[in-house]
Amino acid sequence: MTYAMIGTWQMALDGVAQGLQKLATGDTSGNAVEVAVQAVENEPHFKSVGFGGLPNAEGEVETDAAFMDGDTLAIGAVAGLKGFANPISIARRLSDERFNNFLVGAGASQFAAEQGFTTKNMLTAESKQVWEERVAEVKAKNLSPYAGHDTVGMIALDDQRQMTVGTSTSGLFMKHPGRTGDSPLPGAGYYADSHIGAAAATGLGEDLMKQPLSYEIVRLMGTGLSPQAACDQVVYPFIKELRARFGKAGEFSYVAMNNAGQWGIATNVEFTFAVGDDQHQPQVYIAYPNEDVTGANYRLHEEK
Amino acid sequence: MTYAMIGTWQMALDGVAQGLQKLATGDTSGNAVEVAVQAVENEPHFKSVGFGGLPNAEGEVETDAAFMDGDTLAIGAVAGLKGFANPISIARRLSDERFNNFLVGAGASQFAAEQGFTTKNMLTAESKQVWEERVAEVKAKNLSPYAGHDTVGMIALDDQRQMTVGTSTSGLFMKHPGRTGDSPLPGAGYYADSHIGAAAATGLGEDLMKQPLSYEIVRLMGTGLSPQAACDQVVYPFIKELRARFGKAGEFSYVAMNNAGQWGIATNVEFTFAVGDDQHQPQVYIAYPNEDVTGANYRLHEEK
Repeated sequence: MTYAMIGTWQMALDGVAQGLQKLATGDTSGNAVEVAVQAVENEPHFKSVGFGGLPNAEGEVETDAAFMDGDTLAIGAVAGLKGFANPISIARRLSDERFNNFLVGAGASQFAAEQGFTTKNMLTAESKQVWEERVAEVKAKNLSPYAGHDTVGMIALDDQRQMTVGTSTSGLFMKHPGRTGDSPLPGAGYYADSHIGAAAATGLGEDLMKQPLSYEIVRLMGTGLSPQAACDQVVYPFIKELRARFGKAGEFSYVAMNNAGQWGIATNVEFTFAVGDDQHQPQVYIAYPNEDVTGANYRLHEEK
Repeated sequence: MTYAMIGTWQMALDGVAQGLQKLATGDTSGNAVEVAVQAVENEPHFKSVGFGGLPNAEGEVETDAAFMDGDTLAIGAVAGLKGFANPISIARRLSDERFNNFLVGAGASQFAAEQGFTTKNMLTAESKQVWEERVAEVKAKNLSPYAGHDTVGMIALDDQRQMTVGTSTSGLFMKHPGRTGDSPLPGAGYYADSHIGAAAATGLGEDLMKQPLSYEIVRLMGTGLSPQAACDQVVYPFIKELRARFGKAGEFSYVAMNNAGQWGIATNVEFTFAVGDDQHQPQVYIAYPNEDVTGANYRLHEEK
């Protein structure tokens, strides 16, 4: 195993393929993660990330993203960013800063403008229409508006055994302006340590931040557990504990990879993910909820 | 031991005293933490928290705060909040929400206004003067502007064995607009689990978020370690690892308490903290850097 990538949701497939192409030429895990997340951000049909992401309760697209270097543990993150095409690239630039590496709200947009990042109206006509229909439906049927929140999380391992993780999302559908979830939060939404491995989360950020499970998965892999065993031992017990203590638990899905390119997942909902390496073309798998901690329950979703 | 509190920095003393008075009447750890942090926020002479906090690079005070309930693991947090008197109270209110519990930037201020929280011009004449002098000094001497970043972190244990942690800060002095540190980030800046204990951090947020050490201290206390042993085993090895991997490590200070009211601290700088319980009046201690992991090095700083 010389290089590998895994990403959350079927939407990650093209990005994983592009990242693997970079890795195949000896490029870094950082470059692979950035290009892979950008691919998802740039695709307007993915409604939960980047361009074409669904807007907040007031009709504005606000994005969150993070980038973590598993060698140095350097982190860059943005939350509540408006009007820039590739949040992942801004997060990566911030990870190079000694200070001010996590920026929120207007200050994040100001930094992106100072640094010359590409501005973009992130709201598409299609997203605006979906949003308007949803607003009407929520009102007519007196529904909770908060359904839908798929973050792209990408992990790459390069042939130097360096690991990087990145996340990007437009956040909880119909969120309050300024709402952020786990995606920019280190330990919760993502963690990477090249000496061990990396993990990333997607689901209901409000619950995913109640314990830093991405960190905990990496820590357990560091004790010798396989990525799958670490996911199983971390995620399902916490969901049960949260139900007992908080009264409920939202959607939790994790992907993990160690620095040998082995991977694992855990989820309490139907969950797709894309994975590939130097031996295997990138493919999408589908996983089913499995809270009995008997190992992951997934199969190939489609071939491409 | 029926109740106890610990808070970061000498500035926590009056707040700890007020919190202990509440706990003595059987009040909750949540109420004790809120009143204790408010006391620090309301005092204009403390230059790193709340009213009179030092402004960002553009002369505006932006505050971060968080509140975590150790029974339910519910979290509320704000980052980059402008113009409200008590960020801790807004964070606490957010912890009651099922969704949208972490708000940043203008969206955080919007929520606070919607909920009727008290607005306040957080910049005092004194802080403005300190800021102007510092701007001039940094320019004249070509200094790094980023010195000073003391977060108040408060932990309370009540006579029902419930634990709560809260944090509040105006952040890194001269920060970029929108910069946030570890203080609102669960796991990094704070963590509380009433079944075990709680921890809170202060120091250079950019480094404190590179591993969720507050969570890790709580996790180790859960394996049976004393708060002091957990602090020692978590903090100093990570500082050494960060120096090796990242090339440097900023200021790290932690306080921790378990649900029997025992406490511990770890720091790599001179660090004051305030602590008291049902048997001991609140007092300030001063701790000295101790990276040899031979136990904390502190003594009473003053009596009051």
